[in-house]
Parts: sequence; C-alpha cells; structure tokens
Amino acid sequence: MIRRSPSGAAVLNADTTESINSAALEMLAEVGIGRLSMEAVARRAGVGKSALYRRWPSKTAMTIAVLSEFSVELAATPDTGSLRADIRESVEALRLWLDHPLFSRILPDLVAESGRDPELAELHTRMIGVPRRERAAAIFARARERGEVGDDADIELAMDLLAGPVYWRSAVRAQPVDAAYLDSVTDAIVALVTSTGPGDDGIDTPVR
Amino acid sequence: MIRRSPSGAAVLNADTTESINSAALEMLAEVGIGRLSMEAVARRAGVGKSALYRRWPSKTAMTIAVLSEFSVELAATPDTGSLRADIRESVEALRLWLDHPLFSRILPDLVAESGRDPELAELHTRMIGVPRRERAAAIFARARERGEVGDDADIELAMDLLAGPVYWRSAVRAQPVDAAYLDSVTDAIVALVTSTGPGDDGIDTPVR
Repeated sequence: MIRRSPSGAAVLNADTTESINSAALEMLAEVGIGRLSMEAVARRAGVGKSALYRRWPSKTAMTIAVLSEFSVELAATPDTGSLRADIRESVEALRLWLDHPLFSRILPDLVAESGRDPELAELHTRMIGVPRRERAAAIFARARERGEVGDDADIELAMDLLAGPVYWRSAVRAQPVDAAYLDSVTDAIVALVTSTGPGDDGIDTPVR
Repeated sequence: MIRRSPSGAAVLNADTTESINSAALEMLAEVGIGRLSMEAVARRAGVGKSALYRRWPSKTAMTIAVLSEFSVELAATPDTGSLRADIRESVEALRLWLDHPLFSRILPDLVAESGRDPELAELHTRMIGVPRRERAAAIFARARERGEVGDDADIELAMDLLAGPVYWRSAVRAQPVDAAYLDSVTDAIVALVTSTGPGDDGIDTPVR
C-alpha cells in the first residue's frame, strides 16, 4: 500500500487529479459540503482514498482546492482595449460560472457553510474571492490607464456590480439571466465608473 | 392530549406562536434547514410538538411561514415623496434584513436548500421573494407617477440592484457594508432609472 503523504511530495498523476476533481465537483453539487465524504469521492473517481490524501490533508482543503481551480479558471481576463467590451465579457463569464449546472448548486452551499465554518470562510476568500477580484480589478486599472475611468470612480461598487445582480437574480431569485439583462448590467457599470453623475452631491464614497 | 389539527382550526395562542417563531429562527441559524427537526424547535420553544403541527403541516411549511413573516415585515415601505430617499431607506432596510445576526446565516442556507428542493424553492419565491418584490416595485411606481422615472426605465435591474450588491458583498464576500456603500448603491440606482445614459445604444432591455 502506498504511504499517505499530505505534503504531496510524490509525483501526482494528472489524469487521476482530473478524475478526482470531476468526482468532487459532482458530489459537492449532489450532496453539499456538509455531507461530502472523502470515501465517496474516491469511489466515484475510481481511486483509493490514499490518492486523495496524497493531494490534500482534509476534506476542506480538497473542497477549496477543487473549487478554486474551477472558479479562477472561469474568471474572464478580457483585454479588448474597451472598458465596455471588457465588462460585457466579464459579466458573460460570470454568468457561465454562476449558472454552471454543477457550480450553481455548489456556490450557495459554499456561502452557507462559510457562514458556519470560519476556516472554510477564510479559504473561500483567499483562494477564490481574492484571485477572482484581482482579475476584475485589472480591467478597471487598464481603463484608468487609458483615461476611460477617472481617479474618483467607485471601483469597489463596480466590482460588486459585476457579480451581485446576476447572483441575486439567478441564485437567490431563481430567475433567468439573458443577454439583454447582461447588456443592462454592463451599461449600469460603465455609467457608474465613467460619469460623475448624481454621486457628486457632497456625499463622498470611499474609493479603493 | 390535544388532537393534532393541521388545518389550524383551533384558536392559536399568540404568545405560543411567538415562542415557536423565535425558537425556529434560532435553530435555523444554528443547524440549518437540513438538520432542523420539529422536536428540537418544540423543545426550544417549551411547547409540545402538537403546538407546531396545529400551526403547520410540515417542517418546510413551518420554515417558510416563519421566514416569510420575519422577512416581509422587515421589507421597507418608505413613501417619503422622493425617489432617492425611498431608495436609501430601502437599502438600509435590506442591509438590516441581510445582516441580521440570525437571518444572515439563514438566507444563504435557504438559497442552498432551495437549489436542492423544488417545493422549498417555490414556497421561498411565493412567500418571501414576491411579496418583498411587490413592496420594492411600489417605490418605483410612485416615482413614475411623480414623473421622476421615465416609462423606459429598467425597473427590473433597479430592483435587483436594491439587494444584489449588498448580498454579494455581505453574504458571499463576507465584507462589511457601511453607510457610504449604501449611499453609493443608492446613487447608482437613482442614476440608472432617472437617466437614459449609455443604455440608449439601440439594445432594448425588457421592462417589467
């Protein structure tokens, strides 16, 4: 029997990793994080439990690693040269991420479990939230360099608007998100960061 | 022993109902919908299980009834005569609802469970989503009557913006939502529904 090595020192087979990732995603969608077991993931992937423990020391570590790889890969990194086109690509990518047949059931569960499990919450922020946020921030940084976005633009809110309305609509309200809706979200974000608009009423909002 | 009557024909004691509601909210936050049991709620409320079954035929019915009463009551119905002030009051009420020490743990769980349970999802939409949405719609309908909002304003998106960014920020990202943030959200919604702005690019978005 192969010795368990949580440090991952052994050479790991890429196909096995792929099988485990797929099995973990499927089971996370089916049973949720709370009821997920390493045994069941190993069985679904057709590998021994030791193959999992060679990669990750715990269920939480496996869950976040699998979700992070899946999520960060799906974050758009458009660089079309136009703020509007970059944002439109980003909200489309966000919709694909949030509406993914497996992930659309996983993210609400991850959010709920993170509220009950501080370790999971910290990993969730560090491994998924922050890397995805950095990719979104790059879009606005480039637009600022091009002069499309002013220094006082509310980038914090703009980044929440990339995901917030789509998540609220699709996950919380269970309503469809179509192309016209994504156009509207894009328009609202462009308007927010390119105009001074009604924000200039003396109420200062903090800018990232 | 009192006969169980799921029809609720008997006169129900208001103090008992209040005790059960509080116990159910506490336990929904602590253990989640999946692990909630009628027995445990009855024990926490200091009543017999029959007191619960006289009110609701099932755990799902109890959960949604308790969450609906709590949530619809907390939906703001401001009528200040000004769209901006109405929206600012609404987002403040939304923040109080979403950041409530118990409910902030319950809603993500309800969203996750609704993804796995179509009956719960349907009740969730009908008993919480729709009544709250109607209250929000009234704000924009009054603003339209006053001429503050045009006929082509994207009220659907505006209503998603009342809750979406705050929910994304507080529940999904676990970041604080302060007064300045709510001011920014208010500005963005007012700008969206009062200006034609960059939305007038020939791409029509459906209006509720």
